[in-house]
Amino acid sequence: MDLKDYLSQRKILVDQKLSELLPAVNGPHTRVVEAMRYSLLGGGKRLRPILCLAAAEAVAGESAAALPVACALEMIHTYSLIHDDLPAMDDDDLRRGRPTCHKQFDEATAILAGDGLLTAAFAVMAEAALRNLANVVAYMEAVQTIAGASGHQGMVGGQMADLLAEGRPSSLEQVEAIHRMKTGALLTAAVRAGAVLGGGSPAQVEALTRYGEKFGLIFQITDDLLDVEGESAEMGKPTGMDAVRQKATYPAVLGVAGAREQARQLVEGALLDLQPFGAAAEPLRQLARYLLVRRQ
Amino acid sequence: MDLKDYLSQRKILVDQKLSELLPAVNGPHTRVVEAMRYSLLGGGKRLRPILCLAAAEAVAGESAAALPVACALEMIHTYSLIHDDLPAMDDDDLRRGRPTCHKQFDEATAILAGDGLLTAAFAVMAEAALRNLANVVAYMEAVQTIAGASGHQGMVGGQMADLLAEGRPSSLEQVEAIHRMKTGALLTAAVRAGAVLGGGSPAQVEALTRYGEKFGLIFQITDDLLDVEGESAEMGKPTGMDAVRQKATYPAVLGVAGAREQARQLVEGALLDLQPFGAAAEPLRQLARYLLVRRQ
Repeated sequence: MDLKDYLSQRKILVDQKLSELLPAVNGPHTRVVEAMRYSLLGGGKRLRPILCLAAAEAVAGESAAALPVACALEMIHTYSLIHDDLPAMDDDDLRRGRPTCHKQFDEATAILAGDGLLTAAFAVMAEAALRNLANVVAYMEAVQTIAGASGHQGMVGGQMADLLAEGRPSSLEQVEAIHRMKTGALLTAAVRAGAVLGGGSPAQVEALTRYGEKFGLIFQITDDLLDVEGESAEMGKPTGMDAVRQKATYPAVLGVAGAREQARQLVEGALLDLQPFGAAAEPLRQLARYLLVRRQ
Repeated sequence: MDLKDYLSQRKILVDQKLSELLPAVNGPHTRVVEAMRYSLLGGGKRLRPILCLAAAEAVAGESAAALPVACALEMIHTYSLIHDDLPAMDDDDLRRGRPTCHKQFDEATAILAGDGLLTAAFAVMAEAALRNLANVVAYMEAVQTIAGASGHQGMVGGQMADLLAEGRPSSLEQVEAIHRMKTGALLTAAVRAGAVLGGGSPAQVEALTRYGEKFGLIFQITDDLLDVEGESAEMGKPTGMDAVRQKATYPAVLGVAGAREQARQLVEGALLDLQPFGAAAEPLRQLARYLLVRRQ
């Protein structure tokens, strides 16, 4: 398989479904839906949806039941970007190469657009479940996994910890704990939810969850490395900002070479987790390796 | 039955369960959980949970399966208050007689506390469903109903429309459309979700939903009237602010006497919707009448 083709085909599939799930409206809520669509449909790698679909494919060979859940994950990811970019949080002006939601609209609209996307994610999963009652338990497990990973014990808690850690020296353990919650939890949930929707056995779901946990750590390490080494134009946002803000990062604790070696070892472990799945896990395998060479 | 006793017993039940569902934690997310608990457990009439429980009782005679959903409704209501109070939105300093979340903590923490409560609501419903698989479809219907009522087609869309309507003259139709989305949708969803969790027949669920729609309108009309006529000390927040902000309200469009008459007629209709339920609907009946005489 060619990873580039795979990614671009899956991205098209997800983008089409997202636009269909959140159509433009005409009414008193036009403005907030415009802002939701501006941020949701304005690019992005669709990494979480693609992980979810690839995990379903690894156990089931196909991923139709997982597609609404994949889209819900992207809605949650996008809401978190909109809120993290707000002036009271990271105060960012650029995201995915365009003005952030509160710059394009205004703060109140951006807060509501984030709230609306988070809520829509759960509406989308519930609607899919009620149209496919044979899978209703699997969808409910996906709701539980994704809500758990997104809330105060996951992404929301991690963003809080990250804000509090700015400007304070952090240990490797603290950096890992923050990133497991802030970024890792939702990436892991994407893989786990896909495995569940694909009808994976408990052992398969656990093996893919372990892969997902490593994927989350590798993603964060390579994200930190890109902030040190990446090009602002390719990233679609300013680089070097972690150091300016004295953020808790892997390169800050391990050095650039140490962080790169840590990521390489984690990829080895992730590939071992995928061994039982054979050829069906090839996309997940290539996705893990891709993190080591990604430029955005 | 004595409504005052009923309300206070149900409030104790809900308050205990809420505290149990969101325990204090010690970790990198301590601060955001403190803020969530500060706003969630700091008083409030618990009207949405009580409506949900009373609707389950109207069809089933008891409400155990509805309790987690009742608590999820209060989490969503509380998140909406936290975000609506933010400086970029209504910029309020007092809520339930205490400093608002962003005044007690800070803006970033308040945004995250709201996000965390909205997410926790769905986690709580999913966990209850997976512990009670015989009712999993009813819980999924509750997730759908509540997510639909809370998002861009409901509460989030209504808050957007309300912000845009400030300072502009509004017709009765516009005022009703805004309030149906902003406040009515979640109150209606509370009743409907309770009816579904109680195992109500389609006809029972529809009858209680019609009651819930009227309840939502009566609630908003009497809320507007309290802002004109109520005492700031009893309300726990400043009154008279709707006029200052030129908000779209019923008294502004119909006059105080006209708004009061409109509410009285809607209560008559709501009582008709409850006729088939006999004595089991007595709490819902008294709740509708109570709106006409409430002082907070």
